[in-house]
This record gives sequence, structure tokens and C-alpha cells, in this order.
Amino acid sequence: MSLIDRPADEPANTSLPGIEAPEDNRPLSMTDRIFMTHQGGKIQVAGKFQIESPDTLAVAYTPGVGRVSQAIAEDPALTYRLTGKGNSVAVVTDGSAVLGLGNLGPQAALPVMEGKVMLFQQLAGLDAWPLCLATQDPDEIVRIVTAIAPSFGGINLEDIGAPRCFDIERRLQAHLDIPVMHDDQHGTAVVVLAALVNALKVTKRRLDQVTIVVNGLGAAGVACCQLLLAAGVTHLRGCDKKGLVLTGRPEALRHDRHNLPVLIQYDNPSGTLQDALRGAHVFIGLSVGNVLTPDDLTFMADDPIVFALANPEPELAPELGSRHCRIYASGRSDYPNQSNNLLAFPGLFRGALDARATLFNEAMYLAAAAALADLVPTHCLSEQCIIPSAFNTHVVPTVAKAVAQAARDTGVARRLGINHRTGMSPSTSRTRDADR
Amino acid sequence: MSLIDRPADEPANTSLPGIEAPEDNRPLSMTDRIFMTHQGGKIQVAGKFQIESPDTLAVAYTPGVGRVSQAIAEDPALTYRLTGKGNSVAVVTDGSAVLGLGNLGPQAALPVMEGKVMLFQQLAGLDAWPLCLATQDPDEIVRIVTAIAPSFGGINLEDIGAPRCFDIERRLQAHLDIPVMHDDQHGTAVVVLAALVNALKVTKRRLDQVTIVVNGLGAAGVACCQLLLAAGVTHLRGCDKKGLVLTGRPEALRHDRHNLPVLIQYDNPSGTLQDALRGAHVFIGLSVGNVLTPDDLTFMADDPIVFALANPEPELAPELGSRHCRIYASGRSDYPNQSNNLLAFPGLFRGALDARATLFNEAMYLAAAAALADLVPTHCLSEQCIIPSAFNTHVVPTVAKAVAQAARDTGVARRLGINHRTGMSPSTSRTRDADR
Repeated sequence: MSLIDRPADEPANTSLPGIEAPEDNRPLSMTDRIFMTHQGGKIQVAGKFQIESPDTLAVAYTPGVGRVSQAIAEDPALTYRLTGKGNSVAVVTDGSAVLGLGNLGPQAALPVMEGKVMLFQQLAGLDAWPLCLATQDPDEIVRIVTAIAPSFGGINLEDIGAPRCFDIERRLQAHLDIPVMHDDQHGTAVVVLAALVNALKVTKRRLDQVTIVVNGLGAAGVACCQLLLAAGVTHLRGCDKKGLVLTGRPEALRHDRHNLPVLIQYDNPSGTLQDALRGAHVFIGLSVGNVLTPDDLTFMADDPIVFALANPEPELAPELGSRHCRIYASGRSDYPNQSNNLLAFPGLFRGALDARATLFNEAMYLAAAAALADLVPTHCLSEQCIIPSAFNTHVVPTVAKAVAQAARDTGVARRLGINHRTGMSPSTSRTRDADR
Repeated sequence: MSLIDRPADEPANTSLPGIEAPEDNRPLSMTDRIFMTHQGGKIQVAGKFQIESPDTLAVAYTPGVGRVSQAIAEDPALTYRLTGKGNSVAVVTDGSAVLGLGNLGPQAALPVMEGKVMLFQQLAGLDAWPLCLATQDPDEIVRIVTAIAPSFGGINLEDIGAPRCFDIERRLQAHLDIPVMHDDQHGTAVVVLAALVNALKVTKRRLDQVTIVVNGLGAAGVACCQLLLAAGVTHLRGCDKKGLVLTGRPEALRHDRHNLPVLIQYDNPSGTLQDALRGAHVFIGLSVGNVLTPDDLTFMADDPIVFALANPEPELAPELGSRHCRIYASGRSDYPNQSNNLLAFPGLFRGALDARATLFNEAMYLAAAAALADLVPTHCLSEQCIIPSAFNTHVVPTVAKAVAQAARDTGVARRLGINHRTGMSPSTSRTRDADR
């Protein structure tokens, strides 16, 4: 399944194979498997050791801890060494775009954030905690996240609707000296770019030779356009529900890629989706289910590549995609080429925190995508295999290592040593690291 | 050791038996025991189960979790059942009064908050998380804590200086439908009242018969005065560093106990500490070390009771206290009657969350103190034993049960069943509870 946003105005169908959802997708009973699994929540906190005696208490708490506080007050950089800050991530949402279900509010977002916290821990050994905010005001969100930042090593923004998410992320990253990332944007973009790089290897084309249509210009779509342009894509067309709303000369688009929302004529399309598809080699859907038909594919160039990433219903049904496309990818776990943000966000944060990066930058996203693409060995590349599995244990350490290196190469790393934790597997991830 | 505040302007001495502090209390080396223990922090997050397959992923995360989010959006009360909200506590500080060390800022407060999180988990099975705020503006703190509340079942304010702490706590409790408690205030007050009740049993006197001097009218001192008045103390005198600054007719003080800060004439004393001690039966020190001398005790009535709770140096040294007082208590772990907030805060939050209380009220604090006092069996009561040990495993469940019952009795409980988790011991505290 894809973790990619759906627009809030689309009804959702959460019934997928293996998930026992009643027909109307509503909780008819608290006794089914999904609700049973969620009883009491999915995450917990633990001490790294037990306080079993007055002596341990005096070391881990008062009065001994006072010396640690004094040391940090004199040298704040010691926070990274003497607390969990450097390994912790705040998973922050305002509940305005919960999965594809829309503006359900902060409490309804909590089970999703808990799931994300589990994945941060299990895949990257990071201690994350969910913060579901009772405000959707961008100024307030920026103020709140800025204020809670001292005890966290990174900020993962999640399920915050577009276009507010762009401004919130930009302002937070400008305020804070820790990496801030809206996963719905950049996690998605990294996975899409990695998949595309490999799809083009299979079809023996280059990024700067193909015409790409991105359909759906919300958080994920805009971020994908930005990263594709940064990676060297020259012929890019962006569509939203009204049609073709983003075009431009390659150099101009690339130059202005960080201001794309300003360039998009959401209410003034210059053509239809079909117009955009004319002669295109790649369709990247980050929109809603079933907006693409086999007839539409006839407008495209030969050997069409289609990433239909709407969740849970892809833009083009998988059984049609596998028949009419040269390469087809979706969020579906029951078909090849499952694209999932799980492939990106754990390694992105692991790498950024290992390098003690002050921010996430484009070089780090590009490095993550390249590393992810390279995880599929050349001899394994095929129409059915352009992206590694989310359960491939090499993914997180490999992505993390590349991200940390990119942070160092671009001068945003505060830790330059190579003894970081990127080689960590879930089973070793809970050990204490004296170097942190 | 006591967890009680010291005024920010006092130098601190963190050198206590068993704690290897260099003479000047500064971290001369990162290799000593305390700093080694703090490497990388003291807390971690864990999932309650592993996501080991696409199927588990689809249940615990997307797409399955979408159904849980929809259910909560339709009935927000389900947040308590289907997430960890009901078992989680935010440990919030602004770093303005870190232990007795003063205004060290949010990052220096983090090791203390991590210690508190460990204790919440180990003693009460609660999942707490530290939030160290980069602001000391009361309005901002109220806004931030209000905004982060949706994912927490309770708010523990910690190490926030007086007098700002009073207003912040009051406003937050008015805004939120979850219990909010400033531990430096009420945790201390509960322990003091419990110890006093038992001390009076030993000396065969009643609360309404004795004259009590509270010395130090910061967060802890004011809260102690309030709770003592609520418990029936009639003759109360409050002193601060300038002398006797709080007196009044018993009924008037009791009636206005929630506005005590307004009644205190901090800059206009009506006498000295020695004046206040004249004929008093009880001295409760929540101030600074060594402000009481054996000579001062001669002003007091026979059989003086002295609680010298300044940390780490008591108001009266223990070797003097044991010689010159009928009953002496301090924060010192190496003398009898160690008074420690550990005796109160875990059970207070466990009980409030078990009852799903909407707030903390005075009845809950009084119930906690009574339960704590009753934990010392009558036949064990003596000058050397007025309070249970912080490592007594009966403390948390007993206090929690009393607090939950008081919440129900006063109509602030949202869960009326008796199958709460108050009987939990540390070893069973991590099991999942389908009733949560």
C-alpha cells in the first residue's frame, strides 16, 4: 500500500485484501482484528535500565542528574551526548489530512502517528513520539513545533494538508537547527524518483530525455515535481483535477522549483490530462483512484511507464496497468513494484540524525533516491522489479548512509565521524551508543 | 533525597553519599559514573508488537489504521480505547527551575525529565514523554500545552518557577479535559501532609490543634499551605526569606487558600522566622539549607516536629535534627523519614488516568495523602517511621486506588468501573490492557 495522500474530498475505501473491513468501511464491531490490535494503543516507553535502588535513583535522577543538567547548561552541545535528543523524532500532525481520509482532527490522527512511531523504532531504531496538535493554524503550528524542538533531534511533519504544509515546513526549517521533513512530500518524492530511475534503466532512457506527467499537485505531487526537476528532468507537465496546470520551459521550471505552488495555475488549466499525456513517456499519479483509462494510454509514447500511487485505489487499476503499460507501479502490496514511503522516511531520518544534520536539503533527498534505486542490482532489474521491498533489511542502513554522507558533503552535518549507526538492524537498534 | 525545589538564587551542592561529584560539582570528566549512565539518554520507545509482514503492516498501519481513525473521528471518546492516550503523560518543563539549580533552560532540563519518565514507567506503568519548551512565557506555555494535549491522558508540569507556575497550571486545567498537575507543588504537598498526619499520630495531637510554620513560599511551600488548610490545619504561619509574610484568621486563610499568593506579603514581613516559631509545634522547610538552628527550636513548643526538606542540604542538618527534635524528616536517603515526591506523583497520575479524571482536585490530593499515611501500619508508627519507603511496592497502587475513588466521589471521573490498573506492579505494567 502506498502512504501517499489522497485529496480530502474523495471518499475512501480502506477495504484491501487481508484487511477485514465491513462493506461500508465503518467500525461495526470493536472485536474485529484491526480494532483488537489497536486496543490501548501500539507504542510504549521504557527506561534503558531499571532504577532498583536508592543508589541508582541518585545517579539517574536526583541529586546526580543535577550535574548532567549543569554540564548541558554550560555546553548545550552536550544535550546530544547526555540525553536522548539525538535519537528522537517528533511525529507532528494537525490531523488535517489523515491518510486519504481528510480532515479528521488530531485525535483521529493518533493511531496513524502511533503506527509511524512503531516503524521509526523498528526500522531505524529511532525513538519517536506522536504529537497531535489541536490547532490547524500555520502560525500556531510553527510556534508550537519551534517550542517543543529542544528535546527532539528531528521533526517529522505528517498528514498536514496542502498548501499549508509547504509554508509550515519551510518556516520551521528556517527557525530550527534540527532537520524538519514533511514525509507526505519528500518521503514520497524520494521513492518516486528511485522507482523512476530504475524504470528508465529498464527501458534504456535518461531522465532528461523523457516527458513526465505528474497528476495530482497536492503535497506529494508538488514535492515530486521539485525533486524530479532537481534530478535533471526537463520535460515536466503537472496536472490537477481541472487539467494541465503546470508547464514551462525546462530551465525556468528547474530554477523556480522551490516556488512551484506559485507557478501552478490551479484554476486556469491550459489543457486536459489527455492533452498533457500526448507523447509523454511517464505518468506519475498522486491523485485519486481510476482517473486514468486504457484509452488515455494511447496518447502516450510507446512503452508507457505508469506509477499509479493513489491509495488505496490506484489511478489505473493494477490488472489494467499490467496489461497496457511497459512498467506499472502502485501502492498495492499484491502487485509488483509496490511504492511505499516506508522505503524512505526511516533511512532519511536515521541518516540525518546520524550526521547530526541541521536540516534536510535537496542533496540529501537525491542521495536517498539514488541509494534506494541502487539497492536493486542491475541483474535483477526488470519491468516487475524497479524498487526494493519495504521489508528488505538493507534499505534503511543504505539510505541512511547515503543521506548522512550527503549532509556532510553539503556542509550541514555537525558530526563528521563515520561511526554512525547506519549499519543498525532492528535487532541491534535498542543498544545504547556511547558515541551518541 | 527530596525532589523539592530550591530557590534559583541559591548555589547548589549536589555532592551526596554514593554520588561521585568532584568538589566543585562540575563535570570534570565524562567518564564518571553519572555521566556514563546518561550517555545517549535514559529512555526509549518501543512498539507493543513487531510489524514483521505486509499483513501486520496493513493492520497496524495503512490501510487498516484508517478504519480506526474514522471510528475515532466519529466518536472521539474511542481515542482512550484505541490509542495510548489514556496511558500517556506529557512531562512538560520550561527549564526555569531545574531541580534546585535555577533557570538552566529547556535542554538542561531534559535529563531530569527523562529520569521522571523512567519513574513514571517503572513505578506506575505510564508512558510519559518529555517536552522541554523553548519559551518561558506563560501565555505561550498555556497555548502550547493546550495544543499538544490531544495525544496525552495527563499533563505533568515540572520544574517551572514560581509564581508563574500557579497561573500556568490553573489556566491549563481550566482549558483541558485531562488532569494537569505541577508536581513541584502538589506532589510535595501530598507527601508533606501524609508525613505530618503520621507525625501527629505519634505525638498524639490533631491537625487542628497544632501551630505550623511553613518556611519557603515558592511552588512547594504555597501548595503545602493550601493542602494543609484543606486538611483542617487552623494555625498556619508562612515565612519566606524576609520573614513572616503569611498569617491570618484560620477561617479566612482556609477560605482563601486557592489565592494564597495574593495574600502573601513577600516584601512586607510582620515578623522574623523566630517570631513565627514562637509556640509552634511543627516546622516545615521548603526553602534552603541550614536556615534553622538548634537555638531556633527553643522558641517552639515541646516535642518539636521538623521537616527539613530543602535539597540537598536540609534547613536543619540531620545530625542536629535527630538530637533536638521529637520527629525529624528530610530528603536525605541516609536518615529516617525520607520524604520524596516519588511517593506521590506516580500514584496520583495512575489513579487519575485509571478513573479517566477530567482534572486533579483537592479531594484527590487529600485522598492520596491519607492513603500514603495509612501505608504505615499503626504498630509500626514511631518517631523514626512516619512515611513509607519510595521503594515500597504497595505505595503506587494504594495511592492510585484512593485517587481514582476520590475522582469518582467528586464527579470528575469518566470511567466508573473498578477494573482499573491500580494493582499493577512494575513487572506487569507493560502488559496490554484491553480495557484501556
